[in-house]
Amino acid sequence: MQLGVCYYPEHWPEDRWPIDAREMAETGLSLVRIGEFAWSRIEPEPGRFDWAWLDRAIEVLHAEGLRIILGTPTATPPKWLYNQMPDMAALGRDGKARKFGSRRHYCFSHRGYREQAARITSAMAERYGSHPAIAAWQTDNEYGCHDTVQSFSPAARDAFRLWLAARYTSIDALNQAWGNVFWSMEYRSFDEIDLPNLTVTEANPAHWLAFRRFSSDQVISFNRAQVDILRESSPDRDITHNAMGFYTGYDHHDLAADLDVLGWDSYPLGFLEMFRFSEEDKCRYARQGHPDIAAFHHDLYRGCAKHGRWSVLEQQPGPVNWARHNPAPLRGMVRLWTLEAMAHGAELVSYFRWRQSPKAQEQMHAGLLRPDGEPAPALTEVKEAAANVAELGPLGAGTKHAALVFSYTSEWMTQIQPQGEGCSALWAAFNCYSALRKLGLNVDIVAPDASLDGYGLVVVPCSPIVPDALAKSLENFGGQIVIGPRSGSRDEDFAIPPTLAPGKLETLIGGKVTLSETLRPGVVYQGDDWEVAGWLDRLERPQGGATPELTANDGTVASWRNANVRYCAAWPEGALIDRLIEKAAIDGALPAARLPEGTRRRSCKNYIFEFDYLAAVASIKPQI
Amino acid sequence: MQLGVCYYPEHWPEDRWPIDAREMAETGLSLVRIGEFAWSRIEPEPGRFDWAWLDRAIEVLHAEGLRIILGTPTATPPKWLYNQMPDMAALGRDGKARKFGSRRHYCFSHRGYREQAARITSAMAERYGSHPAIAAWQTDNEYGCHDTVQSFSPAARDAFRLWLAARYTSIDALNQAWGNVFWSMEYRSFDEIDLPNLTVTEANPAHWLAFRRFSSDQVISFNRAQVDILRESSPDRDITHNAMGFYTGYDHHDLAADLDVLGWDSYPLGFLEMFRFSEEDKCRYARQGHPDIAAFHHDLYRGCAKHGRWSVLEQQPGPVNWARHNPAPLRGMVRLWTLEAMAHGAELVSYFRWRQSPKAQEQMHAGLLRPDGEPAPALTEVKEAAANVAELGPLGAGTKHAALVFSYTSEWMTQIQPQGEGCSALWAAFNCYSALRKLGLNVDIVAPDASLDGYGLVVVPCSPIVPDALAKSLENFGGQIVIGPRSGSRDEDFAIPPTLAPGKLETLIGGKVTLSETLRPGVVYQGDDWEVAGWLDRLERPQGGATPELTANDGTVASWRNANVRYCAAWPEGALIDRLIEKAAIDGALPAARLPEGTRRRSCKNYIFEFDYLAAVASIKPQI
Amino acid sequence: MQLGVCYYPEHWPEDRWPIDAREMAETGLSLVRIGEFAWSRIEPEPGRFDWAWLDRAIEVLHAEGLRIILGTPTATPPKWLYNQMPDMAALGRDGKARKFGSRRHYCFSHRGYREQAARITSAMAERYGSHPAIAAWQTDNEYGCHDTVQSFSPAARDAFRLWLAARYTSIDALNQAWGNVFWSMEYRSFDEIDLPNLTVTEANPAHWLAFRRFSSDQVISFNRAQVDILRESSPDRDITHNAMGFYTGYDHHDLAADLDVLGWDSYPLGFLEMFRFSEEDKCRYARQGHPDIAAFHHDLYRGCAKHGRWSVLEQQPGPVNWARHNPAPLRGMVRLWTLEAMAHGAELVSYFRWRQSPKAQEQMHAGLLRPDGEPAPALTEVKEAAANVAELGPLGAGTKHAALVFSYTSEWMTQIQPQGEGCSALWAAFNCYSALRKLGLNVDIVAPDASLDGYGLVVVPCSPIVPDALAKSLENFGGQIVIGPRSGSRDEDFAIPPTLAPGKLETLIGGKVTLSETLRPGVVYQGDDWEVAGWLDRLERPQGGATPELTANDGTVASWRNANVRYCAAWPEGALIDRLIEKAAIDGALPAARLPEGTRRRSCKNYIFEFDYLAAVASIKPQI
Ligand SMILES: [Zn+2]
Ligand SMILES: [Zn+2]
Ligand SMILES: [Zn+2]
Repeated sequence: MQLGVCYYPEHWPEDRWPIDAREMAETGLSLVRIGEFAWSRIEPEPGRFDWAWLDRAIEVLHAEGLRIILGTPTATPPKWLYNQMPDMAALGRDGKARKFGSRRHYCFSHRGYREQAARITSAMAERYGSHPAIAAWQTDNEYGCHDTVQSFSPAARDAFRLWLAARYTSIDALNQAWGNVFWSMEYRSFDEIDLPNLTVTEANPAHWLAFRRFSSDQVISFNRAQVDILRESSPDRDITHNAMGFYTGYDHHDLAADLDVLGWDSYPLGFLEMFRFSEEDKCRYARQGHPDIAAFHHDLYRGCAKHGRWSVLEQQPGPVNWARHNPAPLRGMVRLWTLEAMAHGAELVSYFRWRQSPKAQEQMHAGLLRPDGEPAPALTEVKEAAANVAELGPLGAGTKHAALVFSYTSEWMTQIQPQGEGCSALWAAFNCYSALRKLGLNVDIVAPDASLDGYGLVVVPCSPIVPDALAKSLENFGGQIVIGPRSGSRDEDFAIPPTLAPGKLETLIGGKVTLSETLRPGVVYQGDDWEVAGWLDRLERPQGGATPELTANDGTVASWRNANVRYCAAWPEGALIDRLIEKAAIDGALPAARLPEGTRRRSCKNYIFEFDYLAAVASIKPQI
Repeated sequence: MQLGVCYYPEHWPEDRWPIDAREMAETGLSLVRIGEFAWSRIEPEPGRFDWAWLDRAIEVLHAEGLRIILGTPTATPPKWLYNQMPDMAALGRDGKARKFGSRRHYCFSHRGYREQAARITSAMAERYGSHPAIAAWQTDNEYGCHDTVQSFSPAARDAFRLWLAARYTSIDALNQAWGNVFWSMEYRSFDEIDLPNLTVTEANPAHWLAFRRFSSDQVISFNRAQVDILRESSPDRDITHNAMGFYTGYDHHDLAADLDVLGWDSYPLGFLEMFRFSEEDKCRYARQGHPDIAAFHHDLYRGCAKHGRWSVLEQQPGPVNWARHNPAPLRGMVRLWTLEAMAHGAELVSYFRWRQSPKAQEQMHAGLLRPDGEPAPALTEVKEAAANVAELGPLGAGTKHAALVFSYTSEWMTQIQPQGEGCSALWAAFNCYSALRKLGLNVDIVAPDASLDGYGLVVVPCSPIVPDALAKSLENFGGQIVIGPRSGSRDEDFAIPPTLAPGKLETLIGGKVTLSETLRPGVVYQGDDWEVAGWLDRLERPQGGATPELTANDGTVASWRNANVRYCAAWPEGALIDRLIEKAAIDGALPAARLPEGTRRRSCKNYIFEFDYLAAVASIKPQI
Repeated sequence: MQLGVCYYPEHWPEDRWPIDAREMAETGLSLVRIGEFAWSRIEPEPGRFDWAWLDRAIEVLHAEGLRIILGTPTATPPKWLYNQMPDMAALGRDGKARKFGSRRHYCFSHRGYREQAARITSAMAERYGSHPAIAAWQTDNEYGCHDTVQSFSPAARDAFRLWLAARYTSIDALNQAWGNVFWSMEYRSFDEIDLPNLTVTEANPAHWLAFRRFSSDQVISFNRAQVDILRESSPDRDITHNAMGFYTGYDHHDLAADLDVLGWDSYPLGFLEMFRFSEEDKCRYARQGHPDIAAFHHDLYRGCAKHGRWSVLEQQPGPVNWARHNPAPLRGMVRLWTLEAMAHGAELVSYFRWRQSPKAQEQMHAGLLRPDGEPAPALTEVKEAAANVAELGPLGAGTKHAALVFSYTSEWMTQIQPQGEGCSALWAAFNCYSALRKLGLNVDIVAPDASLDGYGLVVVPCSPIVPDALAKSLENFGGQIVIGPRSGSRDEDFAIPPTLAPGKLETLIGGKVTLSETLRPGVVYQGDDWEVAGWLDRLERPQGGATPELTANDGTVASWRNANVRYCAAWPEGALIDRLIEKAAIDGALPAARLPEGTRRRSCKNYIFEFDYLAAVASIKPQI
């Protein structure tokens, strides 16, 4: 694994560059990510390029033996470009233009901006495509950041109509698939279809699902246009992009198919504060992040990445500026996070950023250096981590224990139609992931069409659509299977299947879901040390079908078992999903044991990593 | 009482219709509500009508002896119509168009849409007006659903100006009535008046009240246009409309004056979850609904209906899709709800819907059949209820105990000017209603101009405007009277009367309210087992006027008594209003007795109905 | 000190005026504020003035010996004027016009409205400029009320560009100062700069700060235009304006520089309910207001006022209409508030309003008379207060104990960039103020450039920008100094200084802040009877620099001491800031002693005032 850093030479006086470069090298870093926000310096006026400063910056870094990940600057088009075509702005769900003044002020469907993005990408690719310092390219920056994937602009509407026409061929087919006869929503042509925002009450869930798929596809094609240019002008360089945490606005499996390496940006403290963890965990882990945040994404994005190549393109090194509250990490956490990434197979951990900026939006975002150029606390830990990394031999492959099936479509569907507040496929997946991790198991988060060979346990937390490939691989799977609610409950266009849920999985599960209901907080059915909460499916099972396994004190069946298959009839959360997964792990003879609070483990062929989040200590032992 | 069901033949293959019709008849249903969302199938293209399918559907149902309530489809105009005149959309309070894509995408004031609504109504009335299967017509569907009564469109503004000119005749009269000299809000002509939204701070409450009245009147005249057409082309059929729960967007007394039967849509579980019940009650009654939800509306709408004819046009049969959490009813509740409606005098209970739709917005809304066409749990209970209904002889009239006075204007005024957060006339009425019901009393919820003959007790929970008719009937009333705060505190145009509150009721109450204040949660004055909270009126009373009755430990007077009249000086809620109403009931020698938690009763001439909501059990005994 | 009242003769029949005037005089009032909302009566049609009624009203009041504060009516332009140029409306941050229908419906940058405001001001000034009854003028009313200082209109955008050009001279200077290279936000000309609203994510804090300064300056210049006219046509009259509570939308030091007397509007109960006090305090002081609310503003605005002349232009006399809950003051509070204002040096306390209006937006806002013209409870207390005031001789100057440094820019900066939710410079100042008051100390709230002579203690709660004048006066200050977090952490354009925080104060404080972090509720470090919460600065101090003073049980340093200077490294709130200020007061030998809960004191040369808020008792003793 290499270590790297994000750097903005354009922010600093040129005579500082050599000092920075030397210190980076001394710290043990080998890759520097630059350029992704520099459009206004690369092309200060329409058509006038200024390459000189960037040439020099690259040379200075290269001279210290550092290699470059060069970003296309399409996340920050300059004001002169925006003013040429202000309708390049995305429109929010409220119909309002999202204007210039920060970043990501563009609509993925705007043809004019797509041309501009291609133009600047080509210019950079031609300039630096065969430069020896360039190790890789990053396209744009954090697609979807600030909720920018969905745009409700005229450009998006027009593109959506074309997309629908391509997908459904005939308007009758679309009306039929969506059930538009309901509420007289039938269309006579694709040109009658609008975007699903600003309707009187919620639009058809099938309409929303189509729009979510379309919006994701627009990101993919926007990215692919850059990838095509870069592959042409800069052969043999990796192409990457930096994904985000707990973000599902586009399908990362689709994006990753066009990339060599999938990167992501890891901010465990900010994510803990801003996402749905309990108040108790938000306090307990305020300086560490919940122990499964980083690992979940490592395992998720490794599963998305073509050939499993992935990296951390931005690693939190201190307090950030964007959460409600922004504490500093505990001493030891920057090293721990680095080694946790390594344990999960990262190619690179790149800290964000080299030096804290004294100005603009992120002036309170820590770096490895303080704004005055002196070392920030993280720098020492990065050096320690660099030494640790250097000492270790090859890790070997991660041990295969459990696979967890996740698809982006699942999360879109539960967002569109939660039915019970808080029922989200993403968080169901996180809960199941955490249950596995607390038992010390390795987890691969895989797409529905992934091979399940070699695992002892497969978990499908919540997958409303079950592709044929998944149904088939589950049928053929010899290990233990745990399936959560809503799985198999919908067809491709959000319709309930004629046989009801779980659709294609009915034989496997050994029953049919005849009624689903959702339960408010406070309405729970108590089991031993777990409870039924949030969601409850009633199962009708044939002779020889599933039998109740976990039953609450009042007789409510929390989970069913059919040979090697368990069905979780309540929402997969808390102690219930922990117990259920533990049972499956034991039945599958996996090396599962309850770890102490805050402790996690990752096994590779040659080493075992142990992480004590409460103490901020990471330790590595050779496998024996 | 008849039982019926809501049915959408256009959703299902035609060869299924006869099966459905036969099963409906076997279940004990006799009426089927159809057609109200079928515009795009009735008129698939502008001016081209397709009656054939609807003819056949009606025939199939009729052949099984079922009769039809046929809905005008004006709640769901098709996209081709919307595209002809996109300004038919209502504008929200935020000024944004509320677009096509769900339902109710029209402004009640839009003249073009009014013409279209008349056109489709005429077409249906001419086609089916004298068809023997047609028992009744339903106009549109749930006026106001999704907050659609108020529109802030140019069409509404223009209509509002005409409405104001008609009401006030001269602009000086309007300026004077509203007190527009305050803040220089005086107008020189009706054409200067805008809608009261998007003002810098709140608009004049008189301005809002006029707009609320206008908005209600627009619903009434929109509905009346359909009624006139239907009466002309379809004589001798009942005309009905389905009102909603806890909804006060238009004056239901006014609407009902144009109808033969007032219907409403009863979703006790959804209403419990979405409206202001305590967390404790939301959990305790999650599968039953609070025991007064359905009954309150039965008694309210019976009081609104011309000649007291009313029905339940939609009855919840299982989980719905639109609340935050959507549990299934306890076994027994569908029968209980049916019998509760009967006990209150319903002509019809119609379950919504026959079969759960596998597609579109309501795919998670249960029906009597599951999406796969098999019986859902409710079907058995409906059969039980049908048997019970058939066994019973005529109930006879409901026994007269207490009248509760409610006007829609009161709720509009407390919404416009709560003065203390949460002080709502509607919920004051619900609290008083519940207090009466918990004593086992029958309640008639009546309009301010209703006769009070035959009651032992009258409650006026919160009536800022006291029409002369009400003042007169209270003066002449011989039984016990309970009056709540704000009553008599305003004139017709929201001005404080020259003699202050309670205005026309001063002699009756025996005092003048010289100061009103509102109290935050946590500021309470403790009485025995009750407390003063929310609101507090200070009374100045003449010699021989009211005397304190309930006094808190610190001396704060919670209620006053003047002969047969009690005045509640605090907000009518909790144990305070329970005690006060109990005192009045005892003084009035009503058969009041505290029922156990969750138990309710309804007495008719021939039967006593008892409902145990906690156990989901309804029992019926003959009067002895 | 004089007592006065706000009066609206245009609301009442003319034959009532003499009765009102006589009762005012008998109550002990000598000043009457009128006219500020009367534009539609003064100029009922464009260009047609009706002075007759106002002439008579002034005469009637004058005849009773009352003198007038006459308001320019520019807060309420009439509809005919608004219709002439509807683009005079401000646009909200959401880009929507804030329309006619209440008040303050204008944009400060609209040139057309500025002309109209000058025209009506000139007309009034010419008519009444030398009238003997006119004691003073009030410009407009409550600038900024209903959040009206910031407008996002085209007029504001154009004016902002001119303002920026004047401030920065060259666009390169602006780009450099703001750090616009970050995210390619560089501009090529001032005409490329837009307002900072509706950006995709937050705009550059430097952009926001400039917009806040600009918006404040627009208020100042709008006001100055009126002042210039009034000084010309009405010499020797005081000019005043009424500021609000906890309101920082414009720089009150700047505004006051153009006024003779700075007024403010004191509503302690409404402010308690609507601003950030604990639930406990909101209940405990529901009928009194927190004991520091009024005093804080008295001391703040005295410090803003040129020559220290200030007054209470509106004093709450009973329940108001605009808080979530609106209780009545405890008997005694109206007198107590009056005497508290006197103790702090007010020239005038003017009650709002004489008689409660039965109509329009404020019909639930109490007056000294009820709507029926009878005395409201406050009237008796005003008479008592008038008698008290009359009995007292001159108070003499307030004793100088502590100075508290506050600038409006500080609050703008913490609003723009809180970094931790709830970290506000205004509330830091309030906390420090309260800590001083609870020790019985007098406090002067002063501008950063104020002289610190004569104080024993200076507190700088949170001042990100430290002007040279403040740095200098702190260096020369001989008494005790307490400095709070973020102080000195930014330059004039929101950049972190090259030496990091506390910038110019580094030597004084004896250390450098190398890391700042923010802590969520629940993450605290416990000290004896205090805790570290909200914010935490880590200090690097040189040999001989600051040493830890308050250290939490786990070793976290809460505060540092360097000779006479204390640095509070945590957020200044709760017991921590109380202890720290107490230590400084003791070291400074100030007469500090912990007062009982709810008790406060104010010392002048000749009297000591004591206020028991819990008992609603004010007592005055001569100094001995
Ligand atoms: Zn981001
Ligand atoms: Zn509805
Ligand atoms: Zn105000």
